[in-house]
Amino acid sequence: MYSLAELAVNLGLAYSGQADRVITGLAPLDSAGPDQLSFIADKKYLSQLAVTRAAAVILHPDYADQCPVASLPCTEPYVMFARASRLFDRSPETKPGIHPSAVVSPDSVVHASASVAAMAVIEAGAVIEEHVSIGAGVFVGSDSRVGKGSKIYPNAVLYHDVHLGESCVLHALAVLGSDGFGFAPGDAGWEKIYQLGGVRIGDRVEIGGGCTIDRGALEHTVIEDGVIIDNQVHIAHNCRIGKNTAIAACCGVAGSAKIGANCTFGGMCGVAGHIEICDNAHFTGRSMVTKSVSEPGSYSSGIPASPSREWRKNAVRFLQLESIYRRLVKLEKQ
Amino acid sequence: MYSLAELAVNLGLAYSGQADRVITGLAPLDSAGPDQLSFIADKKYLSQLAVTRAAAVILHPDYADQCPVASLPCTEPYVMFARASRLFDRSPETKPGIHPSAVVSPDSVVHASASVAAMAVIEAGAVIEEHVSIGAGVFVGSDSRVGKGSKIYPNAVLYHDVHLGESCVLHALAVLGSDGFGFAPGDAGWEKIYQLGGVRIGDRVEIGGGCTIDRGALEHTVIEDGVIIDNQVHIAHNCRIGKNTAIAACCGVAGSAKIGANCTFGGMCGVAGHIEICDNAHFTGRSMVTKSVSEPGSYSSGIPASPSREWRKNAVRFLQLESIYRRLVKLEKQ
Amino acid sequence: MYSLAELAVNLGLAYSGQADRVITGLAPLDSAGPDQLSFIADKKYLSQLAVTRAAAVILHPDYADQCPVASLPCTEPYVMFARASRLFDRSPETKPGIHPSAVVSPDSVVHASASVAAMAVIEAGAVIEEHVSIGAGVFVGSDSRVGKGSKIYPNAVLYHDVHLGESCVLHALAVLGSDGFGFAPGDAGWEKIYQLGGVRIGDRVEIGGGCTIDRGALEHTVIEDGVIIDNQVHIAHNCRIGKNTAIAACCGVAGSAKIGANCTFGGMCGVAGHIEICDNAHFTGRSMVTKSVSEPGSYSSGIPASPSREWRKNAVRFLQLESIYRRLVKLEKQ
Repeated sequence: MYSLAELAVNLGLAYSGQADRVITGLAPLDSAGPDQLSFIADKKYLSQLAVTRAAAVILHPDYADQCPVASLPCTEPYVMFARASRLFDRSPETKPGIHPSAVVSPDSVVHASASVAAMAVIEAGAVIEEHVSIGAGVFVGSDSRVGKGSKIYPNAVLYHDVHLGESCVLHALAVLGSDGFGFAPGDAGWEKIYQLGGVRIGDRVEIGGGCTIDRGALEHTVIEDGVIIDNQVHIAHNCRIGKNTAIAACCGVAGSAKIGANCTFGGMCGVAGHIEICDNAHFTGRSMVTKSVSEPGSYSSGIPASPSREWRKNAVRFLQLESIYRRLVKLEKQ
Repeated sequence: MYSLAELAVNLGLAYSGQADRVITGLAPLDSAGPDQLSFIADKKYLSQLAVTRAAAVILHPDYADQCPVASLPCTEPYVMFARASRLFDRSPETKPGIHPSAVVSPDSVVHASASVAAMAVIEAGAVIEEHVSIGAGVFVGSDSRVGKGSKIYPNAVLYHDVHLGESCVLHALAVLGSDGFGFAPGDAGWEKIYQLGGVRIGDRVEIGGGCTIDRGALEHTVIEDGVIIDNQVHIAHNCRIGKNTAIAACCGVAGSAKIGANCTFGGMCGVAGHIEICDNAHFTGRSMVTKSVSEPGSYSSGIPASPSREWRKNAVRFLQLESIYRRLVKLEKQ
Repeated sequence: MYSLAELAVNLGLAYSGQADRVITGLAPLDSAGPDQLSFIADKKYLSQLAVTRAAAVILHPDYADQCPVASLPCTEPYVMFARASRLFDRSPETKPGIHPSAVVSPDSVVHASASVAAMAVIEAGAVIEEHVSIGAGVFVGSDSRVGKGSKIYPNAVLYHDVHLGESCVLHALAVLGSDGFGFAPGDAGWEKIYQLGGVRIGDRVEIGGGCTIDRGALEHTVIEDGVIIDNQVHIAHNCRIGKNTAIAACCGVAGSAKIGANCTFGGMCGVAGHIEICDNAHFTGRSMVTKSVSEPGSYSSGIPASPSREWRKNAVRFLQLESIYRRLVKLEKQ
């Protein structure tokens, strides 16, 4: 709970309106009540702004005139709203110290300000830096490292030789450093190729629940600074994901793919192995990226759903496309 | 092991045949042996019924004449078979009480009839109701609640402020309440939007292994009563899934999507964010649902596999469809 | 660290070059330094071979002439490279014995040579054979069995009645034996069909992180010897996966599908329920396999990504394919 004035100080913003107006939470423009803060980041919501009941609105100075309630003007309202969200976060805080049930190797280094929760296991050679929070049941393998201020949620697993940078968030049940899928086809079946690389993750990386990021075969799998990854994403061995790239849920990136910086992937995209994607390439949901991409821009694939009766006919015709094409060419020649 | 008469009593059905016939298990019509119970729910299996060796068959009264063995007639044979399956379930039972290795906050409430297995962690403010079973290594975050009779399998994780209703089943390694994927694009990279909502799950909901259901950004993510969700499904923040909807494995539902009641999704469907799907809409496997659906019915997308040689040609032609269409129109005009 | 001569002995190969040349690791041909071993398995890399700086190269005898450095000739260079990778693996070793924090039922059998790590839970009736490694936080349910020499990584879960064969690898957070997705549609909603079968997994099977393999409804779900499965793959109830089949990440196989031996699936393939796939069928990434396949060969589906502007037009035309076809036929008749 903040007064409008306190909020403005916290966000480093000026404000219009009553300084002691009490604000208890955040809400979208159209549902915000008289004790909630809201924001507008797109002019398409100006009609909602006109009638909002919010206590105050974070907005671009250009819209301040049209705001019927108190306002906090700034040039990046959405970013400022993100910062405000932190002020209202009620996630449980973790306390420094190692829970008595945790099993921490005497050959590891855990900073005194770090928190290691119940049932966590820290192996020999691991390093847990300042203000790290290791959740319940988390496993940190030998010679792995968790950088300053990072937070790992329950039951996530770091194999050995995995480095997570500073200020990262790793959600529950994520796996870092599992073996890459490397096998040689021998006469007697598949022969395992031992995966000798590790995983190197930069700073300010967030990785969602249930993600799997494999260790490299010979070198490391690398996730650069500022990358954000949603739930259930799979990153195969030897991949490199460039700075600030965002990957939505259920994507899969095959082995040795190199993805540039500032790319975005909608949900359920698949990226083929051994390809390269340049910076600033954007893929809508379910794109199937089979070739290298060297031009920034937006790419798509996939067929949107239609009524099954129609779809069935069209899907059959897809399988005849080559012959349809040839028949068309023949007609054209006549 | 039941006699036919005992089985009939348990299911609340009449029967034809020998009362003391011993039945030790269940099997499909075509493989059932002389001590097994089977069922027929579709007339296409009538030829199998004619020659079945089962001890007894659950069937519609209309088919009783054609049954060469004992029968248990009823109007919903498949549902009755489901109920019979429970009688033969040999899953290990859990015993009331808290395992000495579990770490249970003194500020939580665990009902005396509940079972908390080894290595489980229950945080402050959590409530575990009657006859709940908390599996080994499960984490229940602060202020979360598990309703009467629900069962949570090992190593699943509930973050804080997650409410699971009564008689739910949550399979191993499912995650409820991880942060939604909310970030604002700032000059210095992505700024995290703290996810202030929780998760609210109704009664009789089953959620498969490895699922992730994110907490809401401002309000709750909601799963209504009777929803069934298969393994590795992802439900993003702020979604609402309506009563009795069924979602098969590997589906993903993007943020703020609202799905109606009694819908079904085949495996690997993707639902775009911020859309609305009406009640009774059905999606075949791998449908890519990009727009709101307001008409009940069946929808599909995706191209079934064909030999790679043919597929390659047709896929190339897909990328020319617009030009093929224009060439066709031109021909038509001539 | 090995000398070239030691390496040759370990691999059972002859060699050319200086016996005491020190080799400290493995690397690809083009980046290998003078103390690293490399390999060539495809003639398209012959130009890299010509200029390699590697200490030695595993190669086919036919290429020995063209190798500027020491060589280890053999008929299956890639398989031999796989074997060499084992020699350089520095994964932490596990020691026999049960960690004091593990909870092991007195009614289970754990071989004295097996390792049970911290926080693991072994239930009654379970059998852990020689030289098995049970990772931290792993749950092995009642009457389950882990065969000789198998290794299970942290926080994986085996429900009851799951048999894992010998020399298997199960990665972190994999689930074996969760309930199949079986429900009968009743008047009052879905009625659960209790899943009475188990899971039977052969020898030398590797299963990736976050995979889910459901138990059978009436009979077992079966994975045969030598199958390799990448991360986040879902195998539904009653499936059978044939010997040495390889399944890449993020695939899903629906209930009761039977897949033959020596098949390969690229990432993100989906296999429909109740179909049969013959031996030696191969599916490129993201294939949607909706019908039984009885001819060995390569199959594909899916539309590769293209620029969104073009894709949008073509996707619209896809929904008109049936009408385009009819218009073409009409023109042809004229």
